[in-house]
Amino acid sequence: MAAPAKGENLSLVVHGPGDIRLENYPIPELGPNDVLLKMHSVGICGSDVHYWEHGRIGDFVVKKPMVLGHEAAGTVTKVGPMVKHLKPGDRVAIEPGVPREIDEFCKIGRYNLTPSIFFCATPPDDGNLCRFYKHSADFCYKLPDSVTFEEGALIEPLSVGIYACRRGSVSLGNKVLVCGAGPIGIVTLLVAKAMGASQVVVIDLSASRLAKAKEVGADFTIQVAKETPHDIAKKVESVLGSKPEVTIECTGAESSVQTGIYATHSGGTLVVVGMGPEMINLPLVHAAVREVDIKGVFRYCNTWPMAVSMLASKTLNAHPGAVP
Amino acid sequence: MAAPAKGENLSLVVHGPGDIRLENYPIPELGPNDVLLKMHSVGICGSDVHYWEHGRIGDFVVKKPMVLGHEAAGTVTKVGPMVKHLKPGDRVAIEPGVPREIDEFCKIGRYNLTPSIFFCATPPDDGNLCRFYKHSADFCYKLPDSVTFEEGALIEPLSVGIYACRRGSVSLGNKVLVCGAGPIGIVTLLVAKAMGASQVVVIDLSASRLAKAKEVGADFTIQVAKETPHDIAKKVESVLGSKPEVTIECTGAESSVQTGIYATHSGGTLVVVGMGPEMINLPLVHAAVREVDIKGVFRYCNTWPMAVSMLASKTLNAHPGAVP
Amino acid sequence: MAAPAKGENLSLVVHGPGDIRLENYPIPELGPNDVLLKMHSVGICGSDVHYWEHGRIGDFVVKKPMVLGHEAAGTVTKVGPMVKHLKPGDRVAIEPGVPREIDEFCKIGRYNLTPSIFFCATPPDDGNLCRFYKHSADFCYKLPDSVTFEEGALIEPLSVGIYACRRGSVSLGNKVLVCGAGPIGIVTLLVAKAMGASQVVVIDLSASRLAKAKEVGADFTIQVAKETPHDIAKKVESVLGSKPEVTIECTGAESSVQTGIYATHSGGTLVVVGMGPEMINLPLVHAAVREVDIKGVFRYCNTWPMAVSMLASKTLNAHPGAVP
Amino acid sequence: MAAPAKGENLSLVVHGPGDIRLENYPIPELGPNDVLLKMHSVGICGSDVHYWEHGRIGDFVVKKPMVLGHEAAGTVTKVGPMVKHLKPGDRVAIEPGVPREIDEFCKIGRYNLTPSIFFCATPPDDGNLCRFYKHSADFCYKLPDSVTFEEGALIEPLSVGIYACRRGSVSLGNKVLVCGAGPIGIVTLLVAKAMGASQVVVIDLSASRLAKAKEVGADFTIQVAKETPHDIAKKVESVLGSKPEVTIECTGAESSVQTGIYATHSGGTLVVVGMGPEMINLPLVHAAVREVDIKGVFRYCNTWPMAVSMLASKTLNAHPGAVP
Repeated sequence: MAAPAKGENLSLVVHGPGDIRLENYPIPELGPNDVLLKMHSVGICGSDVHYWEHGRIGDFVVKKPMVLGHEAAGTVTKVGPMVKHLKPGDRVAIEPGVPREIDEFCKIGRYNLTPSIFFCATPPDDGNLCRFYKHSADFCYKLPDSVTFEEGALIEPLSVGIYACRRGSVSLGNKVLVCGAGPIGIVTLLVAKAMGASQVVVIDLSASRLAKAKEVGADFTIQVAKETPHDIAKKVESVLGSKPEVTIECTGAESSVQTGIYATHSGGTLVVVGMGPEMINLPLVHAAVREVDIKGVFRYCNTWPMAVSMLASKTLNAHPGAVP
Repeated sequence: MAAPAKGENLSLVVHGPGDIRLENYPIPELGPNDVLLKMHSVGICGSDVHYWEHGRIGDFVVKKPMVLGHEAAGTVTKVGPMVKHLKPGDRVAIEPGVPREIDEFCKIGRYNLTPSIFFCATPPDDGNLCRFYKHSADFCYKLPDSVTFEEGALIEPLSVGIYACRRGSVSLGNKVLVCGAGPIGIVTLLVAKAMGASQVVVIDLSASRLAKAKEVGADFTIQVAKETPHDIAKKVESVLGSKPEVTIECTGAESSVQTGIYATHSGGTLVVVGMGPEMINLPLVHAAVREVDIKGVFRYCNTWPMAVSMLASKTLNAHPGAVP
Repeated sequence: MAAPAKGENLSLVVHGPGDIRLENYPIPELGPNDVLLKMHSVGICGSDVHYWEHGRIGDFVVKKPMVLGHEAAGTVTKVGPMVKHLKPGDRVAIEPGVPREIDEFCKIGRYNLTPSIFFCATPPDDGNLCRFYKHSADFCYKLPDSVTFEEGALIEPLSVGIYACRRGSVSLGNKVLVCGAGPIGIVTLLVAKAMGASQVVVIDLSASRLAKAKEVGADFTIQVAKETPHDIAKKVESVLGSKPEVTIECTGAESSVQTGIYATHSGGTLVVVGMGPEMINLPLVHAAVREVDIKGVFRYCNTWPMAVSMLASKTLNAHPGAVP
Repeated sequence: MAAPAKGENLSLVVHGPGDIRLENYPIPELGPNDVLLKMHSVGICGSDVHYWEHGRIGDFVVKKPMVLGHEAAGTVTKVGPMVKHLKPGDRVAIEPGVPREIDEFCKIGRYNLTPSIFFCATPPDDGNLCRFYKHSADFCYKLPDSVTFEEGALIEPLSVGIYACRRGSVSLGNKVLVCGAGPIGIVTLLVAKAMGASQVVVIDLSASRLAKAKEVGADFTIQVAKETPHDIAKKVESVLGSKPEVTIECTGAESSVQTGIYATHSGGTLVVVGMGPEMINLPLVHAAVREVDIKGVFRYCNTWPMAVSMLASKTLNAHPGAVP
C-alpha cells in the first residue's frame, strides 16, 4: 500500500456548537504499540450529532477542535515496532476506549471505569471520522473475511447491548423486558435473544419503533401511553406469564425506571442504560425487599472479541437493516 | 426430660394494638420433620414491640392473636419420626423463616424470597416467645457447648449483618461505610471486620451510638448533622483515603441513601438494609455511570451455619455487650 | 377423569440382573404435597437398561424390585390438599430428583448434592415407567400446549446438557469443545449453541455419531483415532482459530480428559460429565498453571423451568429427531 | 535525594548453575511510565536459590546473566514524565509481574495469565536484588508510614496466599484445610483466618513446621506419615466436625492432591498451589460427582492493594516472625 500523500487526511472536525468543518489533518505519528489505520466505515452516533449541534454533552465540553466518530472499522496500513498481532492489510474493528494507564480498574478487568481513559470523540480526544487514524493495536480487533467493515463499525453500538445483557446476567431461558425500542433497545433485544433469552418483550411509546423491534425478533411488544408504571408492569407480566428476570431500561425516563422496578421478578436485575435527569423518584424499598438489583452501565468493556466471534459465526445478525 | 404438664406453655401473645397477654397455649403436636423445643433465650426485636404497640407493620396486620418472638434458642425435647440430625437434649439456635414449599426461589438457594414462607411472629405466623415451641428440624442448628443460648438467640440479628455484607461482597482489604450505628449497623460492622475489611467507617447522628461503634471496632466514626450528602461523602473519602468499595445503608433515610451513592467507589456496591418511605429521590445516573450497584436485602438466608461456626471459633465476638 | 380401576397400574419392574417384569402395582396414595400422574411418555435411558441387565450401577444395587424410568411426562389426575400450582388435567414434565429434607445443599440451591435425595429409578427409589405415578408437586412443571409430552420427557437428558454448560459458564461468543458425540454430547452441543456459543467443535471416534452432531449444529467435527491428547488439542485449536474457553468432556475416557486439559484456553473451564475409571492419570500442573478449572457435574439442578421455557419459545429444538 | 554516582548499582547476578556474581550494573533509564527505585528490602525466595544452584526452573532457563530478586520494597527516587500517583521519596512495594501489552487476559482482569508478561527474576527478565531498579509505576504501591519495608517485601509471598484463598472463595465461617506447612502454607493459613475462616487445619509431615502453623493461628494441625489419602481425609473431617469447604494444596505431592479431593466437602473447592510431577494419578470421578472443583493458581493478580490495606490496618499480622 502506497504511503498517503501529504494533506490527504480529511477529517470531520467540530469546533464548537453548530461549527463543523472538513479539514486536512496531518497523518499521525505512531508510538511503539500503535497502528495506523485507513478508515473505511464510521457510524454517526447520536453523540456525534450532539457535539456538533451543542458543542457539549453534560460536563464534556468541546474546548478545542475535535475530530468526530467512534463507531469504526478500517485497514491497518502501518504498525509500530512492538505490535505483534496485526500487520498491514489487516481489516480491523476499533474499540474507541483505550486506558492510558493500568490503574486499579484496568487491573480488575473493568477498564471502562478508568477515569483517565482515552475515548474517541469525547473531548478532548479526537475520534476517527477521518481518512487516517492512529490507535492502540491492543484495541484493534482483526475481522475475518466473512465480517464486513460495516458490521465491524456496528460492533460499537452492539457492545452497549452485549455489556448491558452481561451486567444483567441474561441467561438461557430468561424472560427479558427491554424498555425503549430505539437503537440501543434494538441491539439489546438482539443480544438477549442470542444469549438464549426465551421471551423478550419490548415497550415504547412509538408504534413504528415497536414494529421494528417485532421485525428483528421481539416476542412481544407493548405500546405504552399514559398508563402508570404499575399498570405497565402488570401488562408485561401478563404477556410473559410471569415477571421478567431481567429488565434493561434504555430510555432514562423516570417513569420507565419505576416500571422496571415494579416489573422485574424478585431476585432479578434492572440494568440502567438510559440516561435521565440527575435526580429521579424511585420506589427503592419495593426493589430492595424483593432483591431486585439495580445496576448501571458505563459504555462497555470486553465486548469486541465476542462480537467479532458472533458476527463471524452468524450467531447474531447485525446487518445494517437489522441494527438501526 | 419429663413431659411438660398440661397448661405449662406460657406464651406472650399480641391480640391487637396495645393488647398483649400472657396466655397458656397448648403444647404443639409435631409433624414428621419437626422438633419440640423448650425455649431458653428469646430476644425482643423492635418489630415485636411495634406489633405490640401498633398491631401491624405496614401490610402485615395482626388479625388474630399471635405469639411474639423470633430471635431465639432452646433445647430439643422431642423429635418427629423423620428427624435425623437432632435428638432430645440438643441445644439449638432457631432460624425463624421456614419455606412451606420448595418453590423456584427455594430451589436456587434464595428461600428468603419465597412468598409463602412461614416466619416467626410475622402475621399470621406465631413466634417463639413461649415455653414450648415446635419448629422444622431443618431450620434448627445445633449449638456446640462453647456457644451460649444468648449467643444462639443473637444469631438472628447477626444474620442481617452477615447477609448484608455478603450481598455487598465485602472482602479482604475492603474499605466499608456503614450508615447508621443502631443494632443493625453495629452487627454489620462486626461482620465486615470478621470478613477482612481493613477499614470500616460508621456514620450516625448520635454521638453515643458512634461511641458504641468505636468501642466494638469501627476504625472511624463520623457524626453527621446537617451536611449535604455530597459533603458527607467527601468526609468519608477523606478519612478512608479513598472511597469505600462497599456501603451498607442501615437507616432508610433518603439523604443517607443519597450519601451512599455519592460515597461508594466506582464499581462498588451500595446495600440497602434500612427501610424508608415508599418513594425516594435518588441520583440514579450518578450511580449508573460509575457502576455502583444498588442491592437490597430481604431478611437473610444461609447464615445460621456460618454464624454458629464463627461463634464457636470466636471469629466473631457477639456477647450481649458487643451486640446491642 | 374417571378414577382408575383397581389393578390398572401396569409397571415395568426390575427384580435383579436380567429379571424384568410387567406387574400390576397399587395406585399410590398421595401425601399433602403430591400429585398423581397418568404417565404419557417415558424415555428409556442407558441406566434403565443397565439396571435391567446387571442389576446394579456401581454402588447402586437393586436389592428389592424397582420400577424403572426417569425421563418422563404425564398428566395430573389428582392433587394433594396443599398443592396450589397444579390441578387435574395439567400436562407436566417430571424432575426425577426430589430432596427429602431441606439440608445444607438444598438451602444453597444445589439440591442435586443432597445425599438423601429421592431419585426415580435409582435403588431403592421407584421410577415412573408405569401407568400411575405419584410425585412431589414442587418437582412437576406444567407444560404449555405448544410443548409435547415427548419434548417434556426429553427435558431430563437436556438437563444434563444445560447443567454442564452452566457449570462451564458457556457464554455469548464462546468457543466450545464437546468430547463425545453420544446423546449427552449432542444435547450439550444444542444447549451451548442456544447459549450463544459462536463455534462448537465435537470430537468422537465414530464418523456416524459425528455426522449426527454436524446435522444438529456442530460448527466443526473431528474424528479421532490414535492421536495423542496433545495432537488432538492442536487440531481443535487449529479448526477454531484459538483454544476453546470451555470444554465439556462426555466420554469419561482418560485420554479424552487429558485432551480436555491440553485443549482448553488458559483461564477456561473443563467440565467433566463422562464417568470413567476410579483413578486416572492427569497433567494437573498443566491445568493448574494455566488456571483451567476442572468442574464435575452430578446430575443437574434448576434446569426444568428454563428447559420448558426454551422448548415453548423454540429457542431450542429438541424434537426426537434432534435429540437421540 | 542526590543522584547516585556512576557504578553504584551493585546487583546480584546469576550467570548459570552455581555461578552467582555481585556486579555493577548501570542505573536504568526510565520510560515515561516508569519509576526509579532505591531498593531497601528484597526477600530471597526459593526460586532465587534454585536459579542460582541449577540455572533453571523447568522450562525457564538462565541463558544470559539475570539479576535475582522479586520480593521487594524500596523508595522512589525519580519518576517518568507520565507518572502521576508517585513522587520521589514515596516508599513502595513492588509487584514483580508487569504486562507488556493489554491483551485478552489483561482486559478481563487476569493479567497473571498474559504470556508475554515481564516478571522479575524469571528468565530473561532481571529482578530487583540490586541498589537501583526501574519498574512500571502502575505496579508500585505506596506504603503508608505504618507499614515497614520488610512488610512491603513480604507482600509477594502473602499474595500467593491471598490469591489462593480468593480462588477458593474462602469466606466467613468456612472450614479450610491447608496441605503443607511451608512458607506458602503458612501465609495461606494467615489469609484464610483474615478472611473469616472459622477453623483451619494444617497438615504436614514435619512436626516443627506444624508447630509454626499452630503458633501463627492454625486451629488444628495433623502430622501425617504413611496414612492413605482416605485415612487422612477422615482425620481432617474428624477434627473439624465436617469436611472443609475449601482445601488449599501447597505441596504438589500426588498423595496430597488425592487427600485434597477426598477431604473436601461436596460442592467445595480444591485449590492447587503446589507444583508436582507432570502427570499424577487422581480420583477424578470422586471429585466430579461430588462437584469438588479443582482450580489452580498461576502466581497472583490484584493482591497488592488489599495486602497494603490489610498490613496498614493490622488486619493481618505479617511481621517476619509470622511469615517465614
